[in-house]
Amino acid sequence: MAGKYPTSPLAPAAFPALPVIDGVRFATAAAGVKYQGRTDVMLAALDAGTTMAGVFTRSKTRSAPVLDCQDKIGQDGDGPAAIVVNSGNSNAFTGKNGIEATRAVTSAAAKALGLEEARVFSSSTGVIGEPLPHARITAKLDELADALSATGIEEAARAIMTTDTFPKGASAEVMVDGKPVKIAGIAKGSGMIAPDMATMLVYIFTDAKVERSVLQDMLSALTDVTFNCITVDSDTSTSDTLLLAATGKSGAEVGPENTAFIEALRGVMLDLSHQVVKDGEGATKFVEIHVSGAASDEDAKVHAMAIANSPLIKTAVAGEDPNWGRVVMAIGKSGAAADRDLLTIRFGDVLVAENGWVSPDYREEQGAAIMKEQEIAISVDLGLGGGTATVWTCDLTHGYISINADYRS
Amino acid sequence: MAGKYPTSPLAPAAFPALPVIDGVRFATAAAGVKYQGRTDVMLAALDAGTTMAGVFTRSKTRSAPVLDCQDKIGQDGDGPAAIVVNSGNSNAFTGKNGIEATRAVTSAAAKALGLEEARVFSSSTGVIGEPLPHARITAKLDELADALSATGIEEAARAIMTTDTFPKGASAEVMVDGKPVKIAGIAKGSGMIAPDMATMLVYIFTDAKVERSVLQDMLSALTDVTFNCITVDSDTSTSDTLLLAATGKSGAEVGPENTAFIEALRGVMLDLSHQVVKDGEGATKFVEIHVSGAASDEDAKVHAMAIANSPLIKTAVAGEDPNWGRVVMAIGKSGAAADRDLLTIRFGDVLVAENGWVSPDYREEQGAAIMKEQEIAISVDLGLGGGTATVWTCDLTHGYISINADYRS
Repeated sequence: MAGKYPTSPLAPAAFPALPVIDGVRFATAAAGVKYQGRTDVMLAALDAGTTMAGVFTRSKTRSAPVLDCQDKIGQDGDGPAAIVVNSGNSNAFTGKNGIEATRAVTSAAAKALGLEEARVFSSSTGVIGEPLPHARITAKLDELADALSATGIEEAARAIMTTDTFPKGASAEVMVDGKPVKIAGIAKGSGMIAPDMATMLVYIFTDAKVERSVLQDMLSALTDVTFNCITVDSDTSTSDTLLLAATGKSGAEVGPENTAFIEALRGVMLDLSHQVVKDGEGATKFVEIHVSGAASDEDAKVHAMAIANSPLIKTAVAGEDPNWGRVVMAIGKSGAAADRDLLTIRFGDVLVAENGWVSPDYREEQGAAIMKEQEIAISVDLGLGGGTATVWTCDLTHGYISINADYRS
Repeated sequence: MAGKYPTSPLAPAAFPALPVIDGVRFATAAAGVKYQGRTDVMLAALDAGTTMAGVFTRSKTRSAPVLDCQDKIGQDGDGPAAIVVNSGNSNAFTGKNGIEATRAVTSAAAKALGLEEARVFSSSTGVIGEPLPHARITAKLDELADALSATGIEEAARAIMTTDTFPKGASAEVMVDGKPVKIAGIAKGSGMIAPDMATMLVYIFTDAKVERSVLQDMLSALTDVTFNCITVDSDTSTSDTLLLAATGKSGAEVGPENTAFIEALRGVMLDLSHQVVKDGEGATKFVEIHVSGAASDEDAKVHAMAIANSPLIKTAVAGEDPNWGRVVMAIGKSGAAADRDLLTIRFGDVLVAENGWVSPDYREEQGAAIMKEQEIAISVDLGLGGGTATVWTCDLTHGYISINADYRS
């Protein structure tokens, strides 16, 4: 599983150098939840003064830790807090035992760190339906509490990986009231990625001081244009969780209208979401799909996601085939408004089709050259209105089949 | 393409012996539309007295021949008629030229057979967006008209194939008012298969005498529980067409309440729709998904299709992995009503999960044994109400990627 597959060709050259976020410390351990010979638990401790926001999967079969996190995230408070994450077992569809397992972990973490259990947020990722061996995790919590370090974020990114082929991190720095504010985040996820979140766990930290409700509004709005605009395989996980913690240690107060901070946070979220797509199971190409001219923004997203999720388009991209006919097919099936004879389709900057047919100047070699690139843009204009959307996906290759046909065996 | 891939392991042992339908004759030719060394045009001539019904793709980018057929199918009339089909080129997204190409074919067929152009129905299947070389087809029409034969239905089934690995036929016989009535049908389709029809062309013939509007109502109702309940890859074609011709030659009149005839027709449609799934690109397993206990029939179908279209479930089936957690995931993401703790999941007859967790008696070997079968049933009960649905799909394998990553090259 982890380490079993070669690193994605779309992976960045190296894990980025992430800034230390004052008020956040990390520790990791190899608890043997499922994997052997690697870390599989990470603890993040957050100092007093921290506000928290979160977004979660909308799955109706969401996991025990997601339900627990959702209960806690809306509560006011800025006392010390913690995040505990394990990989290898998602503690999803585990019935009443699942809730007890989550409580065992969060209460042990609260005790080890000396904080309220209501301020301990946990996530689990991995196989569904198997009991979480929580005692293996709780047995490590004192050791984890003793090992906390301000510089442990890269190790944290590694400990939460499942089928990921590379750890994912991103950061930004922005000036607020003359003070430098830092943002750093990590993510995991490579399959079961679709809107309404995905098999994604994302943890973002900032030393900005942000009121809880403001932080939550920012996070929710930015999720709609970042993590909810990516898809690998249209499948949605039971466990998706994105937590954002603001420690306030920079002393810089950020309000709801601080566009510089919002833009910086958006950049970190977009970067992490793109890294998740680039680690899409079996991915060899990164595809940006831009739809304009739709009757509404909602329609534009429906069309964009129909293109992004079409197995026939994703296999054409894998085969470097500029098969724009399949784009026409996806627009036709999406259910959103379209007029065949007003469509304009571009691969990269190349005009491929317009006025209901292939463009008279288009030559197959032009499209073929675009498709050989590692990052490909497909643009569709509907010619109907002002609605736009941009989403990101990857190709569908033999690698996806290999990874998912034997995940548990 | 055709003949390039090995015959599906799910194919029937041989093409079935189909009865001759009095009033229908077939001819085929190798017109070289795109393929070399095989037939690619079929003509079916229907005697005077024939009523016609049809259902078509709901794609908003439907092809020129579909638009032409839809215009014609609602017109009353029982004069002689014809169906002309070519494979290799779908004449879809070909603008104004596409309409002209369709008219060229239908008017030439009308002339060759001496009938009204309004009674000539045409279909085209194959690549999207390339001009249909209609002159190659029209050049063959006199030859086709001369070669018409009552026993040519198997050759017709072969001429309409694209990526199909076997020709598809089915038949039934039923007594109406003491007279034997025959039904025989052929189909093509193996990819881009999803509800609201698929890349499917289906032609069914009967010697029953059925009023046009009655025939249309029967066909529309039965399509909802047969062809609209199958999916290979969730993609919907621009060209799907199902035509049903009733020649009346048996002299047996069939009214709207004739359940024996309706049941026989349903059987032929279900058989053909299952054959299309069994020829799903790269398919090695045939999967029936049955959902019960849903809040409504509509909800049941949403859940069933979410399971049938999930790449993670389809790859698990390919890998013979009884990964019921992915079924929980698909139910959770479908958007229809579900309660995690009321779900019951069965693989074949084996109870896998109930009450929000794996069944205490379930052993992985039981599920694994079921998954080794070539035909697999997955049943989910929601525990919420009386809604039910059954849909059919196939697994997602390396074969699908191979076929679709190089379709045009």
